[in-house]
Amino acid sequence: MPLNHRMIKDNKKIYVPSGYQFSVAAAGIKYKDRPDMALIYSEREAVVAGTFTSNRVKAAPVVLDIKRVRSGTGRAIVINSGNANACTGHRGMIDAETICRDISKRLNIPEKSILIASTGVIGTPLPMERVQWGLEDLSRETASTGIEDVARAIMTTDKFPKVSSRMIKTGRTEAILSGVAKGAGMISPDMATMLCFLLTDLAIEKKALKRALKEATERTFNLITVDGDMSTNDTILIMANGAAGNRPLTENSSGYKKFRETLFDLTDEFSRMIVRDGEGATRLIIIRLRGARNYPDAKKAAFSVAKSPLVKTAIYGRDANWGRIMAALGYSGALVREDSVDISINGINLVRGGLGRGKDVAASETLRHNNEVTIDINLNIGTGVERVYTCDLTEEYIRINAAYRT
Amino acid sequence: MPLNHRMIKDNKKIYVPSGYQFSVAAAGIKYKDRPDMALIYSEREAVVAGTFTSNRVKAAPVVLDIKRVRSGTGRAIVINSGNANACTGHRGMIDAETICRDISKRLNIPEKSILIASTGVIGTPLPMERVQWGLEDLSRETASTGIEDVARAIMTTDKFPKVSSRMIKTGRTEAILSGVAKGAGMISPDMATMLCFLLTDLAIEKKALKRALKEATERTFNLITVDGDMSTNDTILIMANGAAGNRPLTENSSGYKKFRETLFDLTDEFSRMIVRDGEGATRLIIIRLRGARNYPDAKKAAFSVAKSPLVKTAIYGRDANWGRIMAALGYSGALVREDSVDISINGINLVRGGLGRGKDVAASETLRHNNEVTIDINLNIGTGVERVYTCDLTEEYIRINAAYRT
Repeated sequence: MPLNHRMIKDNKKIYVPSGYQFSVAAAGIKYKDRPDMALIYSEREAVVAGTFTSNRVKAAPVVLDIKRVRSGTGRAIVINSGNANACTGHRGMIDAETICRDISKRLNIPEKSILIASTGVIGTPLPMERVQWGLEDLSRETASTGIEDVARAIMTTDKFPKVSSRMIKTGRTEAILSGVAKGAGMISPDMATMLCFLLTDLAIEKKALKRALKEATERTFNLITVDGDMSTNDTILIMANGAAGNRPLTENSSGYKKFRETLFDLTDEFSRMIVRDGEGATRLIIIRLRGARNYPDAKKAAFSVAKSPLVKTAIYGRDANWGRIMAALGYSGALVREDSVDISINGINLVRGGLGRGKDVAASETLRHNNEVTIDINLNIGTGVERVYTCDLTEEYIRINAAYRT
Repeated sequence: MPLNHRMIKDNKKIYVPSGYQFSVAAAGIKYKDRPDMALIYSEREAVVAGTFTSNRVKAAPVVLDIKRVRSGTGRAIVINSGNANACTGHRGMIDAETICRDISKRLNIPEKSILIASTGVIGTPLPMERVQWGLEDLSRETASTGIEDVARAIMTTDKFPKVSSRMIKTGRTEAILSGVAKGAGMISPDMATMLCFLLTDLAIEKKALKRALKEATERTFNLITVDGDMSTNDTILIMANGAAGNRPLTENSSGYKKFRETLFDLTDEFSRMIVRDGEGATRLIIIRLRGARNYPDAKKAAFSVAKSPLVKTAIYGRDANWGRIMAALGYSGALVREDSVDISINGINLVRGGLGRGKDVAASETLRHNNEVTIDINLNIGTGVERVYTCDLTEEYIRINAAYRT
C-alpha cells in the first residue's frame, strides 16, 4: 500500500494516517482573511485520550473535553483560534456545547463523540454568529484540505505552522502517527501547555493509549517553558482509529513499546518547535542538568535557570553570562554547593568548581552563530538528571504581548 | 537642638542622624567618572542588625557580614558598585577581608566592626588595585559629603538615587532614621532583594533592633518583585549609634512601637522606590489580594499575578487584560473558584463572579494617565489578605539586561 503523504515546505514529507479527513474555515473570529476554524474527522470511531491544563481556571472547551475523554472514544475534534472561550462562565459552556451539537448534526455522529478546543483572547464570549458560518463551511466536503491546513488554522501568534509525522512498523502493519500543534506564548511546565492534536491509524486499547500520552506529555510538553505563564486552554488530544488493521495494541504487546517511543519522539519534536517559536524568541535553549541530589532537585534547578529573565536576556544579548546561571541555581530551592558547580555553554567549559575559567568571550561567540544553545550544568552532588527546553527573552516578546488585544 | 538636615531634589528634606559621617570615591571599578565606592562611618560604636539574600550562592561580602552582624555591633559600612564580588571563590573572600582590613587601619577601628557590601557584575574578581585607590580617597575627611552622595555611589542600573528619612520623637528624645537603597533588577521576594543601609541615632538594644528589622523586611522588601530573579548580594543593614542620648529601647519600651512603625514606613517607601525604578519600568503595580482561603494562599495568588510576564506586558500596553490575571490566579497554586473572583483595576470593577463586566476600555484608559496601577482582587473564599508591589515589563528591561556586560 503506497503511504498517503503530502509534501510541505522544505520538502518535509508529512505522512497522513488512514481514515481521517480535515477541513478548515475562515470565520473571522478575530483574524481576517485566514482560516481560524478546523475540523479533524475520523471515519470510524477512534480510541481517544487527552491531557489538559492544570490551571484551576479552565476554559469551557477544556471542561467539556475532560468529561468527554473519559468515555475513551471519539469521532471528531473542532478547533478555533482567535478566542479562547475562557472566563466566559455559563455562556461559554453553552457556546461550546452548541458548537459540538451543530457539528454532530451536520456529520450525523453522536454529540458526545465530538471534542473541542479554543485558543486566543480570554474573557470575551465567542462571536457565535461568525462561528456558525464557520461551522457550515467546515462540514462541506473539502477533499483538498490537508493536515497542514489544520496546523495553519489553529495558529495565533505562532510564526510557523507545526506539523509532523512518523511511520510506525509493528509486525506486518505499517501505520502512521501524525500531529499538529500550536504554541508560542503562555507555555509553562506541569500542564499540557498548548494545543496539540495527534492522530494515528493504529488500533490501541484505551488504557494503553492513555498511559502512553500521559508519559509522553510529562517527558516533553511538561518540560518546556517560554514565559512561565500557564494557559487556561492547553489541550493535548490523541485519536487512534484502527484503520491500519492491526490487533489492538495493549500495554504488554510488542508493538506498544515502539508506539510509545515514536510518540515520545514526535511530542519531543513538537515541544522543541513550540519553544523555538516562543513569542519573540531567537534561540532555542536546551538546559541539561545533572549531578543534582535527586530528580526533583534536578527539575527545580533546570527550571530555575530556564525561567530566569536575566539568563534569557543574556542569551538574547549573546552573552555567556554564567554568573546569572549561578544565581538562578542558587535560588532554585535545589541543594547547590557553589564550589562544586560546573557549567558549559555549547560545549565550552566556562565554570569549574564554581569559578570562571576566562572562556566567556569564546562561549559568547558561539551564541552568535547557532540558533540552538546548549547549557550543560553539573551540580556534582548526586545522580539527579533533567533536561528542559526554553527560549531567549526579547523586545519582540514585549511588543507582541503589550499589543495583543489592541 | 536644630535638626541636621539637607535639601535634595524636589525640595525633599533629608534628615541625617547624629554621629555619622559619609564619604564616596570614584575608583573606576566599572563605571567611569562617577563615585562607585562609599563609606558610612559611625563616630561611636553602633548596635547593628542585618537581613541577607536567601540565595544559596552568596557573594563574599554577604558571607562576611552574616558572620560579623552576629556580634550585634559595628562601626562602618564600606560599599562598592560595578562588581558584586560574587562567584569569586576564595579570592573573593580574601578581597573582601582586605578591604575591611584596609579601612580598619585607616580609621583605626577594629576590623570586625566593619561591614561590607558589593553590587554589580557576578563572576569577575574585584580590580583590587583600583579598589585600593578608592579606599584611600574614602578615608580622607570629606565634610561636604552627604548621605545622598552615598545613595548615588551605590547605584548600578538605577535611574534615580534612593534616599529618605523620618523623624522619631520618643519621650523627650528627637531622633532620626535615615536610609539609602539601590535596587532595579533581580528584585524578588523572600530575600533582602537589594542593598539598603538604615541609620539611626536612637539607642536600641540588639535583640529589639534585630527583631524590628526582620519584621520590616518581611512586610516590605520581601513583598516586592521586579523580574523574579534573586540576587547573590542582597543586603539590608541597620546601625543604631545612640547619639540621640535616649535610654536604649527594648522590645517592651514605649518608644519601641513607634520605632517599629517608623521603620516599616521607611522600608515601605524604599520598597516602592525600588519597584518604581525596576529596570525599564513605567508603572508601579500594587496588587491587593483578599478573600483567599488563608494567608499563604493570599501570598501565592498575589505573587503569581505580580510575576506573570503576560500581566506585566499587558499593563505596559495599557490594556486592562483581566483574562491574564484570571489565568495567573488559576495557576498560582492557591484555591481559586473561577465563578467567585472579583477584579478591579484603579477602582473600576472589571470582573464580578468570574465574568467580565464590559468595563475594559474604561479601565484601560486609567492605565494611560496614572503611573501607579492598583489591582484589587477578591477571591471571596476566606480571610487571607496580602499586598505585593511589582512593575510592568517593557522592551527597556530587555535592552538593559541583554546589554549589561557588553
